[in-house]
Amino acid sequence: MIPGPTPVPETVLKAMGRHPIGHRSGEFQAVVERTTAQLRWLHQTNSDVLVITGSGTAAMEAGIINTLSRGDRVICGDNGKFGERWVKVAHAYGLEVTVIKAEWGKPLDPDAFRNALEADTDKQIRAVILTHSETSTGVINDLETISRHVKAHGTALTIADCVTSLGATNVPMDTWNLDVVASGSQKGYMMPPGLSFVAMSERAWNAYERSDLPKFYLDLGPYRKTAAKNSNPFTPAVNLYFALDAALEMMQEEGLEAIFARHARHRDAAQSAMKAIGLALFAAEGHGSPAITAVAPTGIDAELLRKTVKDRFDILLAGGQDHLKGKVFRVGHLGFVCDRDVLTAVAAIEAVLISLDAHNGRMGAGVSAASSILSKS
Amino acid sequence: MIPGPTPVPETVLKAMGRHPIGHRSGEFQAVVERTTAQLRWLHQTNSDVLVITGSGTAAMEAGIINTLSRGDRVICGDNGKFGERWVKVAHAYGLEVTVIKAEWGKPLDPDAFRNALEADTDKQIRAVILTHSETSTGVINDLETISRHVKAHGTALTIADCVTSLGATNVPMDTWNLDVVASGSQKGYMMPPGLSFVAMSERAWNAYERSDLPKFYLDLGPYRKTAAKNSNPFTPAVNLYFALDAALEMMQEEGLEAIFARHARHRDAAQSAMKAIGLALFAAEGHGSPAITAVAPTGIDAELLRKTVKDRFDILLAGGQDHLKGKVFRVGHLGFVCDRDVLTAVAAIEAVLISLDAHNGRMGAGVSAASSILSKS
Repeated sequence: MIPGPTPVPETVLKAMGRHPIGHRSGEFQAVVERTTAQLRWLHQTNSDVLVITGSGTAAMEAGIINTLSRGDRVICGDNGKFGERWVKVAHAYGLEVTVIKAEWGKPLDPDAFRNALEADTDKQIRAVILTHSETSTGVINDLETISRHVKAHGTALTIADCVTSLGATNVPMDTWNLDVVASGSQKGYMMPPGLSFVAMSERAWNAYERSDLPKFYLDLGPYRKTAAKNSNPFTPAVNLYFALDAALEMMQEEGLEAIFARHARHRDAAQSAMKAIGLALFAAEGHGSPAITAVAPTGIDAELLRKTVKDRFDILLAGGQDHLKGKVFRVGHLGFVCDRDVLTAVAAIEAVLISLDAHNGRMGAGVSAASSILSKS
Repeated sequence: MIPGPTPVPETVLKAMGRHPIGHRSGEFQAVVERTTAQLRWLHQTNSDVLVITGSGTAAMEAGIINTLSRGDRVICGDNGKFGERWVKVAHAYGLEVTVIKAEWGKPLDPDAFRNALEADTDKQIRAVILTHSETSTGVINDLETISRHVKAHGTALTIADCVTSLGATNVPMDTWNLDVVASGSQKGYMMPPGLSFVAMSERAWNAYERSDLPKFYLDLGPYRKTAAKNSNPFTPAVNLYFALDAALEMMQEEGLEAIFARHARHRDAAQSAMKAIGLALFAAEGHGSPAITAVAPTGIDAELLRKTVKDRFDILLAGGQDHLKGKVFRVGHLGFVCDRDVLTAVAAIEAVLISLDAHNGRMGAGVSAASSILSKS
């Protein structure tokens, strides 16, 4: 129950476990062709969705360095560890960064973006870079509204880290006018880590033509060119492609609406259960991510709780990152997670709180609250 | 029988096929600790060997951009497709490149490197970048001698693409004073593609401190720092790490000397067989790679032969790349390949030549020649 690597269905593991084949073979081209179409479906886009062997960070970096040039002005949203990371990437490539911050646990304020974009009357801002679902804090940012403000600006691109939102909640790339959408395999995709994905709009490809940042492995031009021929510029992780093919087929069988509803239900159940036990949610009310629920217990060390849940029930919860270590634990409900998993995690947390004499509610209150939400499905 | 992805032992596939675990867990740290030690053994080095989720190109690019700065003078050796690629990477990052070329099929001339390095009396050359085993032509370059000339220069680093030499032939990083050694998992490592490796000497790390080329995902500093704690800067391809662990254990059981002897024997058998059939070798005499034998048949289209071997016997040979397409086919004998595989490939080639009425020798001459070499093991 961590936000990645997430659980992997046996079907996907089996697909991955077969013998690799030549990446230039017709058989492999068929896999690339299928997954390309499936990825467009998942992104709700007609744009290219390119596959990189690498982590989500590689995909996000690719989105940034393929559309921008040295000295370009960008706005970075920062309300958690991943927001911080994109600021670092932007600095590493010599971009001029304006950071719009929100406190960890709070969502980014769309009006702050609107104001900054409206103030940019000579259209110097080239991109707005932000994280949709902030995995470190369990906050989901209002990407739709912020992207609308970017669109109103007219020149800037929206570059979105959708690593823990894509495949968990609605991210309609074309409808929302997103220019770059980056994601990673070990999240909503229900597969092991190792592949990442970057979708680019036509506006982003126009920016690519102007971009002067140096790149080679992450130069998306050759990815696009070879993808058009169902191939890859470099040897890809062939076995992870097999897993991708199987996972996307499972996702298509479930359907986007059902997938999003399941994640929303699990978020609601986790939130409701934590409140019923008397544990405070870390994310601001109404801004909890459908991928992960961050909990800030009082009167008990979050790491002790987390460790005890692991030792006694072999359920792995995520800890707090950086300054949240010991103050926050996080319940992942991302990807291949079912109602039983959520109920089990809640029950285990309750049992451990009781054993540590730290349960602030009636024993069973969490399970009962979760169960009530889950039964609404 | 292509030079990558190479065959993968069932033990390795099984190790890879298990459920992923958290990449920050103690169990995974144990895997990282084990593989780090095994990788040092394989590289015959005390230096760091870092693991990147990405292709061999990513590792090679990392080696270049972590040790050099914009405008630095470098020498690139170019006698094939991969040599060409490192020239492109160097240009992409604004390095000043002197190319030392050799005709495809011929080895790089170590004296050309010595002359260029000796002429550089004010020590402006920062690195010599070259490919050890040129997969596109089946030529092995004299990395040992060239590295000795680099060492005599005193300032330049040796940055070596050992993608199809490491784990196939002797590449003693420390003894040969190599500063950067890059390799990829789908080669001598006997595992699927998706991981790549870059080993860096202390001299290379000193250069890292001065390097000003922009990077983030491929910035090796955080890889080194986290590797010291048996961790990774970004979510790695956890399942491929499982495969790596199993594959390196198999390699240690076989032993470096035995692995190198096996590859040399297979190269000798393949070369001897092709000559006996009357097919010309593409690589210059005495410079054939232990990983791959390139063959330049006359009087028959190499692609027709390759396609017929695939159709009739389901053995995949590699084709010629770029201008060699149709003129050359390549027999991979890299990684998890046994005597039987080599004998089978030779027999299939002979059978197809006979059926195409293009066998220039006595039927069975190839099998006989190969067999004679293989029996010397």
